[in-house]
Parts: sequence; C-alpha cells; structure tokens
Amino acid sequence: MPEPIQVTVWGEYRHEKQNPKVADLYPEGMHETIAGFLREDSNLEVRTAWLDQPEHGLTDEVIAGTDVLVWWGHMAHGEVSDEVVAKLKARVLAGMGLVVLHSGHYSKIFKSLMGSTCSLKWRESTDKERLWNLMPSHPICQGIGEYIEIPAEEMYGEPFGIPTPDELLFISWFTGGEVFRSGATWRRGHGRIFYFRPGHETYPTYHHEDVRIVIRNAVTWARPTVNIPDACPNVPPLEPLPEDPDADSRSHTSHK
Amino acid sequence: MPEPIQVTVWGEYRHEKQNPKVADLYPEGMHETIAGFLREDSNLEVRTAWLDQPEHGLTDEVIAGTDVLVWWGHMAHGEVSDEVVAKLKARVLAGMGLVVLHSGHYSKIFKSLMGSTCSLKWRESTDKERLWNLMPSHPICQGIGEYIEIPAEEMYGEPFGIPTPDELLFISWFTGGEVFRSGATWRRGHGRIFYFRPGHETYPTYHHEDVRIVIRNAVTWARPTVNIPDACPNVPPLEPLPEDPDADSRSHTSHK
Amino acid sequence: MPEPIQVTVWGEYRHEKQNPKVADLYPEGMHETIAGFLREDSNLEVRTAWLDQPEHGLTDEVIAGTDVLVWWGHMAHGEVSDEVVAKLKARVLAGMGLVVLHSGHYSKIFKSLMGSTCSLKWRESTDKERLWNLMPSHPICQGIGEYIEIPAEEMYGEPFGIPTPDELLFISWFTGGEVFRSGATWRRGHGRIFYFRPGHETYPTYHHEDVRIVIRNAVTWARPTVNIPDACPNVPPLEPLPEDPDADSRSHTSHK
Amino acid sequence: MPEPIQVTVWGEYRHEKQNPKVADLYPEGMHETIAGFLREDSNLEVRTAWLDQPEHGLTDEVIAGTDVLVWWGHMAHGEVSDEVVAKLKARVLAGMGLVVLHSGHYSKIFKSLMGSTCSLKWRESTDKERLWNLMPSHPICQGIGEYIEIPAEEMYGEPFGIPTPDELLFISWFTGGEVFRSGATWRRGHGRIFYFRPGHETYPTYHHEDVRIVIRNAVTWARPTVNIPDACPNVPPLEPLPEDPDADSRSHTSHK
Repeated sequence: MPEPIQVTVWGEYRHEKQNPKVADLYPEGMHETIAGFLREDSNLEVRTAWLDQPEHGLTDEVIAGTDVLVWWGHMAHGEVSDEVVAKLKARVLAGMGLVVLHSGHYSKIFKSLMGSTCSLKWRESTDKERLWNLMPSHPICQGIGEYIEIPAEEMYGEPFGIPTPDELLFISWFTGGEVFRSGATWRRGHGRIFYFRPGHETYPTYHHEDVRIVIRNAVTWARPTVNIPDACPNVPPLEPLPEDPDADSRSHTSHK
Repeated sequence: MPEPIQVTVWGEYRHEKQNPKVADLYPEGMHETIAGFLREDSNLEVRTAWLDQPEHGLTDEVIAGTDVLVWWGHMAHGEVSDEVVAKLKARVLAGMGLVVLHSGHYSKIFKSLMGSTCSLKWRESTDKERLWNLMPSHPICQGIGEYIEIPAEEMYGEPFGIPTPDELLFISWFTGGEVFRSGATWRRGHGRIFYFRPGHETYPTYHHEDVRIVIRNAVTWARPTVNIPDACPNVPPLEPLPEDPDADSRSHTSHK
Repeated sequence: MPEPIQVTVWGEYRHEKQNPKVADLYPEGMHETIAGFLREDSNLEVRTAWLDQPEHGLTDEVIAGTDVLVWWGHMAHGEVSDEVVAKLKARVLAGMGLVVLHSGHYSKIFKSLMGSTCSLKWRESTDKERLWNLMPSHPICQGIGEYIEIPAEEMYGEPFGIPTPDELLFISWFTGGEVFRSGATWRRGHGRIFYFRPGHETYPTYHHEDVRIVIRNAVTWARPTVNIPDACPNVPPLEPLPEDPDADSRSHTSHK
Repeated sequence: MPEPIQVTVWGEYRHEKQNPKVADLYPEGMHETIAGFLREDSNLEVRTAWLDQPEHGLTDEVIAGTDVLVWWGHMAHGEVSDEVVAKLKARVLAGMGLVVLHSGHYSKIFKSLMGSTCSLKWRESTDKERLWNLMPSHPICQGIGEYIEIPAEEMYGEPFGIPTPDELLFISWFTGGEVFRSGATWRRGHGRIFYFRPGHETYPTYHHEDVRIVIRNAVTWARPTVNIPDACPNVPPLEPLPEDPDADSRSHTSHK
C-alpha cells in the first residue's frame, strides 16, 4: 500500500460566520465540507486550517508535513501574512502540490506563483455552469463524463489573467454568454498546481458529486515526488577546461 | 514608417566602478554599450537608466514612456525598490516588452513574473559557449546561423528554475559539460518577455556581433501591441438569465 | 515598403454549385469572397485555386510561389490528392504559412500536420456563436474587441481532437450549451498555422467584418521568415573527439 | 494490486543479423534485451514483436491487447506497412502509450503523430553523451540523478524537427559540441508519447542502468487511462434553440 498523502485544507472561514446563507450550506465551514469528502479516499490523511488561527494554522511544522495544500479564500486575501505566503511558495517550488479553488484565483499564493494578474470577469446571479471535459485521459478527469453541470454558480469570464496552462482540462459555458478556462494545471519548480473554478460560497457547489471527484483526483495527482529545496550552486567542470589567465579579475559574485 | 520603439536600457552600473577589468571592457558602463548597439537600428529610440539614480532612473514618466525595457543586474538585485518593481510588473502585464539579460535571471522583476526560483548552476572560468539556434524562423533568430559561438563566458547550467517557456529559441553547450536553455520567451499578461543568457561582466560578450543582433531583434519582437491596465469587472449577462430569488444573500464581495 | 505577401486561397467550390442557398451567399464561390476581402489589404497579392482544377490548382509553381495558403474544404476532403498534400506539407514545414478555416479541420493537410483525429461535436442549427478574445495583444486579434458575435452558425463542440495549441486566441460560446477552442496557432517545422472555426457554407459568415479582420490579420501573421527544406545531415564534430577504434563496425545507415 | 501493464516491445531486428558487433552486444536482439529489463518490473507483462514477422508481429489482437508499445527501428522504416501504422496510430489516439527509442525518431508511427520532419543532425563516433535531468519531479525521471552519462554514443544534434514538447525532461550534451532535446513527452489524442534518444545499435547503451530505469519509468507513465475510439458526432442542443427557418437548406454533410 502506498504511503498516505498528507493533505491540508485551508479555508478563509469568514463568510460562514457572517452570511446565514453560507452557514446553512456549510455549517462547519467550507473547509470542513471539503475535508470531509476528501476523507472518503482512505489514502488521504486530511487536516484543516483557517485564517484566524495563529499563523493561519500554517506553522512551519504543518507546512513541512503537508504533501498537498487545498486553498479556498475570498474576502480577506490581504490578511494572509506575506511571511506565511513566502514559506508556502518555497514549499510548492520544492515539490508540494497545490489545489486552488474558485476565488482563490486572487490569493497571494496563486498570484505569486503565476506571476500575472489572475483577473477575470464575474457576476453573482443565476447562471448555469457547464464544465466541458477536454482531457478525459487526464488523472484529474477520471470518473467525469463529457461535462459537469452545476445548476447555479457565480460566473467567471475570460480573459483570465493567467500564463498559458501546461494542461487545460475544463472550459466552462455560462448561461449569460461567457466562457472560462475552469480547470488547468501548471508546474512551478518541482510542485504541481491545479486551479478549479467552481465553488462560490452562496451556492451548494461543494456538495456536487462531480466537483468532489475532481478535487479528490486533483489532490492525488498533485502529490509530491521529490522535495528539493532551492539552490544556485557554483560547480566545478565535468570536462577539462583550459586555465583561466584572468581568474583574479572575475567577479565571483554569488548568485544569491 | 512605423512609430519608433521607445527603449529603456537599465544597467546596475556597479561592477564597472569596482572592477578595472569590467571598466576596461565597458568604459561608459554596460548599459551604454547595449544602448549603443541598439541605436544602430534607427527605429529604436533608446535611453538608459541605472540603479543609483533617483528611483533607479525609472520614474513614473519613464515607465509610462517605455515600450521595451532591457534589464541587466547582478550584484545588487536586493537594492532595487519593491515599489519600482511593482510598477514595472504592472506595465509588463499591461503590454510593455521586457528583455532580461544574463544575471538578470535573479532580478526581482524577472523572478516576480516567472513565479519560480530562477536558480541555476554557475561557474566563472574559461568555458566556450555555443548557443544552438532551435527556431531559425523566429523573429528573434533572424540573421543568426546554426549557432552563436562565444569564446569564453560564465557557465550557467541546468536545471534552470523557470516555468516551461512558450518558445525555446536557444540551448547552450559549454566546454565543461553543461547545457542551458539560454534563449526563451514567455507571455505574461499582455507583455512579451525574452530571457537571453550571455553577458557576464568580465567577458566582452556585448561586443559580439551575434549577441547584438539577437538583442536588437528581441527588442523589436517585444514591442507592445496594446496597453490594457488590470481590471476585474463585475459584468451584466449578455444572454437572458432567470431571476435570482436569492439575490439578497449573495456575497457581492469585490474580487479586488 | 515590405514585399507583398503571396496568398493562395483554396476553396473546395462544390457546395456553391449544388446548394442554391450557398450560391446566393457566395455567388462567385466562397474562395472568391475570401480573396476579395484579403485584397483590401494592399500588402497581400491574392490568387485562388479550387478542387476541380488540374492538380487542384496547386501546381509546383503555385506552391513554390505561395507565402500563405488559406484552406476551405468540407464535403470532398477525400478527393484531394495525397501527392499534392505531401507537397503542401513539405512547404509548410519549410516555412509557408497555413490558415485553415472551419470544416478544414478535417482536411488532409491539417490532419497530417496535427497528427491527431481533429474530430469534434457538430450541429447545423440556429446557435449564436460568441468568440471570446483571450489574447488581445496577439497580432491576429488586433482590431477585435472583447468578443466576436455571429448571429447564427454551425456549432462545433469540445473535445476537439487537436494537440495543445501553442497559443489559444479564441474560445467560442454557443447558445445550445457547448464551447470550442475556435482560434488557435501552432508552429510545425518553420511554418506557422492558424485554425479559425467560423465559416459554414449556409451562413453569411465570411461577410462578417470581424471574421474578415481576423483572417486578414492571420495571413499577415503567418507569412514566412525562412525557406528551409528538410535535411538530416551527417556532421563532423565542432570540438576534438578521441579516435574511434570501432569505426569500421559502425552502422553508418543514413537516417533517410 | 494494480492490473499488470501489457507491454509490446517492437524491434526491427535486422542489424543484429548483419553486423557482428551488434550481435555481440545484443545476442538475442535488441528487443529481447529491452524486454528483459522491463520484465524486472513485476507489474509489466512484456511480449516482443519484430519486422519480419507476419504483420510485423502486430496483429489486430496484439494491438488491441497492448497498453504500451515500445518502438526501436532504424534501417528499414520504409518496410513497415502503412496499414499497420494506421492501426497503431488509431490505438495511440484512443489511449495506448508509445515509447519511441533513438532512431525511431524517423519511424512512420512517430512522424505521423508528430506531423513534422523529425529530422536532426547525426554522427557515429566517440562522443560522450551527458543527459541533463531538467525535471527531477517527473515520474519518468524518478531514480535518476542530476544527469545520465553514456561513455560513447551516436550524436544527435539540434535543430530536432519536432513540435514543441509538452514536457522537456532531458537535454543532451555531446563531446563534439552539440546539444539535443533527448527526452520529451507529448499527448496526442488520449495517448501519451515519450521519445528517448539513446540507443544506437553499435554501442552497449541498453545495458546502461540509468537508461533502463528511464525506459521502465516511461512505460509505467505511458499506461492508458481510457480507450476512446474516434468519433465526430452530430449532437442535439443541451439548451433551447430558436427554430431554424432554413433547416431545409443546411448542408448536413457528415464530417467524416
């Protein structure tokens, strides 16, 4: 049996306390709902963390012990500490997986790894969302048919300010006339990143079976294969070089 | 006749004052040497800026008036102000071109746009560098033959901590046994980015005709076609939607 | 002034003779309508060719003299000679541009360059098509706003059996609930390829101003920068090698 | 325990009968050597096939029963039947994995899936080859260090006439001064393809432990997740459409 994958589900956990509609849909918080359906896969060991815990629940020990981080945030991206984000980014680049959900497109960690605006069009209304499955052979799409249909969701529309994905898995159709690249992967350093669009807090999206399947698949897909911390080494040659008559005048400035 | 392209060549301009060997090679500074060969193309209007000027010479007016920014820095990346970097990044994402040279792989602006470590192996010695031309049809490679040969250069070796390039134009061979992706392009937002490896300060690389051709080509290739500031608009539907019985309970949290 | 670009617009020219509706929309043939709006750009020199001409109008002389080939075919892909397709493919790989329109997704030349099925979902009905502009900075998208709206068109739906595009410029929304990657580019060899979805023969799509702008832009974008015929050369070393004691037993089989 | 992966190793099996040096290195044929080290992984069920068998050993039954096909060919690409190649291609596009070795870059099946020339530079001599590991987190690179060193091999040099890979895993350095993209992946349809450069018949490359590890890893990586035959269906709308007053004049030409 393979080693269990250590998953941390991070939730902002604010809307649930302020908006009764959200509390009705997710009585223990969205992060607990997400953790709950991940735990249905016995190969996943799942803990949760949230914004208002010390260090947002993301201590050095938690970060070091996390194989895959799932991120949901929305109204308080600015309150996430830059220091924690820097640690998370270093962990992703060293190999940790990252699954970013919905409004997490504007989280510090996602924007920092993408290097671009991550902006989009949006509308909270009664759009139906239909996510077309472009890559049925991809591990993240196993168990999903031609498309996922969500009766009502917040709309996100193109252009989405992301770098070209390594793999484009889903494109969404919305009733109101828009489209969106709603499931996409990137490698950054040694880490695998998956962005998945659905999941506005005032809709029951994380109770939708297909959405759950995709997120469970994504967590397994994103598991680390290595843990390689950053380095920029000065190295000797592997093949013989001529002598350097100017060796004394080289700059020898470290690249750090 | 097309509009001239407004180019700003930014140089750190420190090695030249501290290392006589560098001063010999680049008596007016590396930035002036680079600006000089760019001016051979009459369609380029070229100014220079450097670290120790107020705002590093990159005032709001200069940034707004720059079509393509060429960047060389090495020993003092940390002294570049985060505020200036944030403005440069916003300009690239809105459409400005960026040509990053050599040790600029570790500049704040490049790392921020890449989202990854940008680390590599390195050695200052007597390696010959041969840059193989993988894409002779690319605008940046026009006028370049099968390869560019540089008699001696600092070695940079793989793995290079970058996201997969949109286009890989050059791969370098080094005497000491290493290889490197030495010319590559990325789109980030509406801006075009080109990274070009050669150009360590203690070698006469920016006097090499092929290196000059590549940088001139890159500046023209990177010119903006648009200037689109960031926005994340709340938009009305383009097709009719059903009424929203739950409109009052939506979060309506701005995405900013 | 730059050299004019030599464009050949190839049309199947069969529907126009068999279906009065198509003849009404395109009285001189779809290829002549397309050639007509390309000629509005004085930098393009445009000829036409069609299926029922000798060699389909694509003689060696025409192929050699074509910078960019525009292709529309639908009901008679199988009648296009394999020999002509092989010549066209060699020309694209050597540098010629190729703009493939609509049902040309199933042409021999496009399938051969893609290496995949190029299959899709389809429906001829009353769908509105809205093509969202994902890359407003791209040369092909200049002059196009947020989206192109076509009141009625044949629907093409995902999954589209293509390799991941180098650049994804447009995604289409259809009334009936589907989406499609409707504008995309690939490099193959030294040639640039653009696929553009709209243009079913029973709709007046090639009279739509935005569609015309995109195709004109694409032809200019796809112009060759080189003409490099295929070769697989046996080459001497550029750096000294030790002697080969086993030279006599090497296979020396040509790679052709 | 997972289902075993059904692997077919296809070898040309001609050099071994004609060149005593090759026969010495691979007494039972290169395909048997490759099959032998694959069988060290108990999760792989490995059979072999070769050119001079009826249907090249690739009957409909064998093709249908193969999860991953490993291909080595060199001097007789032209003798492989187009009909068999067409069946193999359809199987790859439906989901079968394909691992192409060395001179297989010029096989009909690889060229047909790439859509490009697949040409390169080459030299049979005494070059050392060092394959740098660009993506240590990739499943194919597990167990491989910074690089693989092969004391002597045929040289392949850039430019390599392939479409931009989805993932570039290895770049080779050669003593004689060349570089090569020597390990790369592509998706085509629902199938995964890996090309791996080393393996000229007059060198003992397939006895090199690192080369064996990479090929074993690649076979597991390339295993199918789906089996989806080609289709281009005419589909009804998922959302209501207005009536089509022109329904009678539509072309309704099948896309096949």
